[in-house]
Amino acid sequence: MTAKIPVSVLGATGTVGQKFIRLLADHPWFEVAAVAASSASAGRLYGEVVRWRENAALPDRIARLPVQPCEPPLQGPIVFSALDADVAGPIEQAFARSGAYVVTNTRIHRMDEDVPLLIPEANSDHLSLIDRQREARGWSGAIIANPNCSTAALTLALAPLHQAFEIERLFVSTMQAVSGAGYPGVASLDIVGNVIPHIGGEEEKIERESRKILGTLADGRVKPAEFAVSVHTNRVAVVDGHLETVSVGFRRRVTPDEAISTLQEFRSPPCVAELPSSPMPPIEVDLRLDRPQPRLDLDRGRGMAVTVGRVRPCPVLDLRLVILGHNTIRGAAGQAVQIAELLVADGRVERPK
Amino acid sequence: MTAKIPVSVLGATGTVGQKFIRLLADHPWFEVAAVAASSASAGRLYGEVVRWRENAALPDRIARLPVQPCEPPLQGPIVFSALDADVAGPIEQAFARSGAYVVTNTRIHRMDEDVPLLIPEANSDHLSLIDRQREARGWSGAIIANPNCSTAALTLALAPLHQAFEIERLFVSTMQAVSGAGYPGVASLDIVGNVIPHIGGEEEKIERESRKILGTLADGRVKPAEFAVSVHTNRVAVVDGHLETVSVGFRRRVTPDEAISTLQEFRSPPCVAELPSSPMPPIEVDLRLDRPQPRLDLDRGRGMAVTVGRVRPCPVLDLRLVILGHNTIRGAAGQAVQIAELLVADGRVERPK
Amino acid sequence: MTAKIPVSVLGATGTVGQKFIRLLADHPWFEVAAVAASSASAGRLYGEVVRWRENAALPDRIARLPVQPCEPPLQGPIVFSALDADVAGPIEQAFARSGAYVVTNTRIHRMDEDVPLLIPEANSDHLSLIDRQREARGWSGAIIANPNCSTAALTLALAPLHQAFEIERLFVSTMQAVSGAGYPGVASLDIVGNVIPHIGGEEEKIERESRKILGTLADGRVKPAEFAVSVHTNRVAVVDGHLETVSVGFRRRVTPDEAISTLQEFRSPPCVAELPSSPMPPIEVDLRLDRPQPRLDLDRGRGMAVTVGRVRPCPVLDLRLVILGHNTIRGAAGQAVQIAELLVADGRVERPK
Amino acid sequence: MTAKIPVSVLGATGTVGQKFIRLLADHPWFEVAAVAASSASAGRLYGEVVRWRENAALPDRIARLPVQPCEPPLQGPIVFSALDADVAGPIEQAFARSGAYVVTNTRIHRMDEDVPLLIPEANSDHLSLIDRQREARGWSGAIIANPNCSTAALTLALAPLHQAFEIERLFVSTMQAVSGAGYPGVASLDIVGNVIPHIGGEEEKIERESRKILGTLADGRVKPAEFAVSVHTNRVAVVDGHLETVSVGFRRRVTPDEAISTLQEFRSPPCVAELPSSPMPPIEVDLRLDRPQPRLDLDRGRGMAVTVGRVRPCPVLDLRLVILGHNTIRGAAGQAVQIAELLVADGRVERPK
Repeated sequence: MTAKIPVSVLGATGTVGQKFIRLLADHPWFEVAAVAASSASAGRLYGEVVRWRENAALPDRIARLPVQPCEPPLQGPIVFSALDADVAGPIEQAFARSGAYVVTNTRIHRMDEDVPLLIPEANSDHLSLIDRQREARGWSGAIIANPNCSTAALTLALAPLHQAFEIERLFVSTMQAVSGAGYPGVASLDIVGNVIPHIGGEEEKIERESRKILGTLADGRVKPAEFAVSVHTNRVAVVDGHLETVSVGFRRRVTPDEAISTLQEFRSPPCVAELPSSPMPPIEVDLRLDRPQPRLDLDRGRGMAVTVGRVRPCPVLDLRLVILGHNTIRGAAGQAVQIAELLVADGRVERPK
Repeated sequence: MTAKIPVSVLGATGTVGQKFIRLLADHPWFEVAAVAASSASAGRLYGEVVRWRENAALPDRIARLPVQPCEPPLQGPIVFSALDADVAGPIEQAFARSGAYVVTNTRIHRMDEDVPLLIPEANSDHLSLIDRQREARGWSGAIIANPNCSTAALTLALAPLHQAFEIERLFVSTMQAVSGAGYPGVASLDIVGNVIPHIGGEEEKIERESRKILGTLADGRVKPAEFAVSVHTNRVAVVDGHLETVSVGFRRRVTPDEAISTLQEFRSPPCVAELPSSPMPPIEVDLRLDRPQPRLDLDRGRGMAVTVGRVRPCPVLDLRLVILGHNTIRGAAGQAVQIAELLVADGRVERPK
Repeated sequence: MTAKIPVSVLGATGTVGQKFIRLLADHPWFEVAAVAASSASAGRLYGEVVRWRENAALPDRIARLPVQPCEPPLQGPIVFSALDADVAGPIEQAFARSGAYVVTNTRIHRMDEDVPLLIPEANSDHLSLIDRQREARGWSGAIIANPNCSTAALTLALAPLHQAFEIERLFVSTMQAVSGAGYPGVASLDIVGNVIPHIGGEEEKIERESRKILGTLADGRVKPAEFAVSVHTNRVAVVDGHLETVSVGFRRRVTPDEAISTLQEFRSPPCVAELPSSPMPPIEVDLRLDRPQPRLDLDRGRGMAVTVGRVRPCPVLDLRLVILGHNTIRGAAGQAVQIAELLVADGRVERPK
Repeated sequence: MTAKIPVSVLGATGTVGQKFIRLLADHPWFEVAAVAASSASAGRLYGEVVRWRENAALPDRIARLPVQPCEPPLQGPIVFSALDADVAGPIEQAFARSGAYVVTNTRIHRMDEDVPLLIPEANSDHLSLIDRQREARGWSGAIIANPNCSTAALTLALAPLHQAFEIERLFVSTMQAVSGAGYPGVASLDIVGNVIPHIGGEEEKIERESRKILGTLADGRVKPAEFAVSVHTNRVAVVDGHLETVSVGFRRRVTPDEAISTLQEFRSPPCVAELPSSPMPPIEVDLRLDRPQPRLDLDRGRGMAVTVGRVRPCPVLDLRLVILGHNTIRGAAGQAVQIAELLVADGRVERPK
C-alpha cells in the first residue's frame, strides 16, 4: 500500500465536519491526520466530543484522535475547513499564510476576487487564481472555496448548457433539505408537515456564486457570466438532497432535444475525470416523467453526480428542467475533497511515493 | 330559524365530497338533503359507506342519509359535484338539463366556452356566461365550475395585480399538499422524506385556467388574459395547503410597495363580500420574512383567504412573491360553496322565506 | 358583559406560554392582564419579542402588553407558569408567598407532598392539599401543578378504570409529538423520517406522576396508587398529539366490554363538569379499528378530551388499549386553565360581579 | 469466475420482488435467471413493466428478461416467492411439487406444521422439517418460509435471551415503516404527520410466529415456545425500519448486564456464519442513550443485523429494551436469500463447479 497524504479537518465535529471524516475514511489518496474544533472540545478525543450523526460507524482510528485547536500548524499540506462563517475568516487565512492549501466549505471567502470558487467539472481553470492570490497576499499556501450547496448542483447542471448556448435569463425555485442548515439547524416544529419559503441569505448566494462559477477567466481574473438570475429558496421536510425547478433562456432558441444531448454528452476535462471523487458521468439525465426525486436519485455517482429531468419547453423562456444534487456531498464535503484531489492531480500537492 | 335551501352532493364519499359535507354541516343558507355516489354505495346509509377522513365528527343527520345513485332528480336547486373526471361529464350535464345548478369541482367542463370558471372575488361577472350556456344547450339548469386547486390560490392573489398593472409574464413553481391528489392518492412510499417534481396535467391546467379566470368578458365570451405563464408543479409531504413561488412581470415596472398596497386594498365586489363563505379580507399580506407557511397560515379566513408574502423585487421580471392557499377549501369545496352562495345573492336561486 | 378575572402568564413567550395566550384570548372568565418573561425581553412589547407559532393570529391587545420581569406582583389572583424548570422554583414560590395561586406546567413542584397534581376530572379532591401547603409554608397563595403531557392523557383515560377495578400492573409505550419538547426542541435532522426511542426523564415522570394522580387522599396526604408501571417513551414526526399503547392488569379480570362501558359512562364531578374548559364527555371511546389517530382525533373536546380506542383483551394482562391526548392542551396549557377555573368554581378565587 | 446457481423470482414486480432483484444483482452464489409476475405483465420485458422504486439502478441484464407466468417450470433449483398471499398458495405448492425449493416471503404457509419458519441464526435446525414435508406431501421440492417483518427482528434479537434464560412473558409495541405495507400501501394522507395504531393481522402474526421460531424441534415437530406475548402494532411515517419497544420477563431474574453480555456474545452456528448474507455480528448492541434509530442504524450488517439498545430494568417484568430491524431486508427479501444460501451450505442445493 502506498503512503497517503495526511490532511487536517477544521470544524470536524459539526455536520459538514463529520461528512469530511466519513468521506475521507477510505480515501485512496488522503488520510485524516488531525481534527480541530472549538477550544471547548480541544484536548479531548474526537470520539468523545462528536455527536456522530452519519449512518456509518465512526472509524476507531479517528475516534481516538485528540481534538486540536484551530491554529496552524496541523498535519499535512491540505486543510479542509467546515468552520462556521463567523469565525472562519482569520483561521483560514492563518493556515493559508502558514503554507497550507485550505479548501473551505465556508461562504466567507467565496466571492474574494482572488479565491477560486470551484466545481472542477465546470471551471477547473479558475484554480489558477491562487497564483495571483499567493502573490498578492504573500502566502505560501492558499484558500480555495467550494460553492454553496444549492449553487453547486445548479451550476454543474447548467455548465454544459451555458458553454454551448450561453444563458441569458434564469429562474430557480429550490426545495432544500434540512441537512443544509446544519445541526441542530431547522426545528422540527417548523418543518414537519410544512414548507418554509425562506432561507436566510441563500437567494443572494445562488445569484452571485453561479455567475462567478460560470464566468470566464481572463488576465488572471474571473469575469462573471452575464445572465440575470432570479431565485426562490424553500426548505422542505427532506433529510438530504436539494431539488431545483429551473426555467432558462439562452442567447438563441434551444430545444429540449438539444439540451438533453448536450447534458448527456458532457464530460469532465481529463484531469478532472480521473479524480477518485469524480462521478462518471457528472450529469445523469433521467427522462422518466417524475424524476429526479431525492429519495430515489440522490446517491448517483456516490452523491457527486447531479440528476437532471423533466427537460421540456418553457412557455416564457426556452427550457424548463429539474435538477437534483446531494447537498452535503456535491454541495459541501464531497466537492471540497474533489477540489483537494485536483490540487494533487495538478501537481500542486505532491503525491507520496 | 329560517328554512334552508336543500342541496345535493354528487361523489359525496370521496375526499372533496367529505369536505362538502363538512362545510355544509353548519351552513347558514344551505342544508344537505341528498348525497349520491357510485352504484356500489347506492342504497346504503352514508355513515356506513363513507371512510370519513375529516377531523370533525360526521354529523348524525348526514350519516343517516341513504346514498342515492348519481341521477336526477335529487334534492333542491343546487347540486355540488365532486365526481371523478372520467364519469362526471354526462352526469353533470343530465342534472343541468333537468334544471339544477351544478357547481362542479371536476375539471371536465372548466374550459368549455360557455361555462364560467369562477373565483367570485376575481371574476363574478363571468357568471353571466350561464345565460348563453342555457340558451345554447337548451338547459333549464346550468354548469358552473371552480378552478383547479393551485389555480384558485394563484389567480385570487394575482387578480388585483393583473387588474391594476396587467400581467405579461409569469413563472410559478408550486409545492402542493398530498390532499390535492384525493384518497388514497399519493402513496406514502413516494412522498415521506421526498419531493415529486411532477403532477400529471397540473401545469397545463394552471396555465390554461389562470388565463380564463383573469380574462375579460365581452359580448358574452371570455377573452383570455394574454400573459405567458410557465409552471413547475411539485408534490411535497404536506397534508393541506399549496404554496407557490411566483415571479411576475407587468406591462409597466411595479415596485413591491405598489404591489403590497394593491393587495392590501383589494376588496371583493359588494355582492361577493356579503357571502357567508367570503373571507375578509380575501387576500392577507404577511410581511414577515418567512411567511406564508402551510402549517401556520392555512386557516386564515377559515381556509378561504389566500396569504401573500415575500413581496420583493425580481432580478429578471418585476416582482417575486409567495402565495399560499388551502387546496381543499379555497381550491375545491369551499370555492364551490361560495359560488353557490353567489347564485343565491344574485337572485338565480330563490331564498326560502 | 361581566368583568373578567385578570390573570398573569410567566414564561409567556415560549411555546406553552403562547398556548396560554391563545387559550385565554377568548376565555369567558379570565383575561390576560400581564405577561412576563426573562429579563432579556422585559420592557419591550409582547408582540415584538414573541416568535408567535400558533396558527391563529396573536390578539392585538396582547401584542401591545409590555413584557414584565418574572417578579411579584403582577396582575390578578392567578398566575400561570410556563417557566423553564431550571428557573421556575424560586419564582413560583415567590408568587405563592405573595398571595397568588400559581398554576404551573413546570415539573419542579409536581412531586412535592403538599402540592396537588391535578386532572380535575380524576382527582379534584386533591386540591385540598393546598390548605396544608399554605399552612406549612406560611403562604397566602399556593402552587398547584398540572402533570407532564403524556401522564395527563394516560391518567385521565385510566382514572375510571382504576376507580372501578383497581390497576395492578401497567405497560405504556408512547409515540410523542415534537411540540412536547418545546421550541426549538427536537432538531428536524433527528426526527424527519425517523423515530427516537428516548425522551430524557419522561419515563420516570410518567411512572411517578401517574401513581400520585390516581392515589387517594387521606389525612391531608396523597397515598400513591400501588400499581407497577413500566414505560417506554418515543418521539415521532408528529406536530401535536401523544399516542400511547397500553396493556393493563387489574385486581380482578376485566373484559373489554366492561372497560368500554366504564369509560363511556365516566363523568366528571359536577363542580368540574361545569367548567368552561371541561370537555363533555371527558373520554371519547372510538370503536373503529384504526383509531385514535393524532391527525383525525386530536381536537376532540377542543383538545381537552382524550380518545380511547382498540380496547381488546391482552394475552398477558387483562386489556390492551390505545390512548390519544393533545399534549399542549390537555397535557399543558389547557389543563392549567381548567385547574384555574376549578379554583374559581371552588370559591377560592372570587368571581368579579 | 465460477458459474452461479440460477434462481427465479415470483412476484418480481412488487416491492419485495424488486428488493429480491436488487439483493441478487451482485450475489456471489445466485443469479436471477427468470422473473415471473401476474398474467397482465407476462410476455413483456421486466424493465418495461416494473415501476422500479429501489434507489440503485435496475441492472440492464434483468431489465431485459421477459416476464414469465407464475407456473413451473422456471429456472434453477430455487424459487423466491414475493407473491400476494391471496394467490400464493397453489402457485407455491405447484413449484414445490415440481421439484423447486420455494423460499417464500408470503404468510400463507408460515404456520403449516411441516413448513420451517426460519431465522437461520436462531433456528437453522428447523430446516429439517422439510424432510417430513416432502415425504408427507409427496413433493420433490419443498416450501420454506421466512417470518413476518416485525417478527424477524424481534425473534432474532430475543433468540439468545430465550436460549439462555427462557422467556415467560413478553410485551411488544412496534413503530413500523410504510414500506412494510408494500406499494402503493399506506396512503400519504393517512400517515404524513400521523401515527396509525393498527396494522391488520400483524399482532396475531407476531404472537404466533415468534413462538414457532423460538420453539424446539423434537420428533420432527416444532414445539412452540410457551411464553405469553402481547403486541401493539403501529404505523409511523418512516420509509424503512421497524422499531420495537419490548418488555420481557424470564423464568429467572435477569439483569441488564447479563442480557447485554448474552446479546454481545451471541454468534450464529458456523454453517450460518459463513453464509454471504449473514451479518457479523448478527446482533449489535448499542449502549448510547437514544439508539437504535431507523435513520442512523438501519443499514448495519447491510440491513441483516438487528440493533438492540436501551437495555434497562423493567418495573414490571425483568427487562426493557428497544429493537430495530430492516423490514424489507432482514424482515423480507434478505432473510429469504439467506435461507436459500443455507440450502446450499447444507448440501440440499448443489453448488455449480
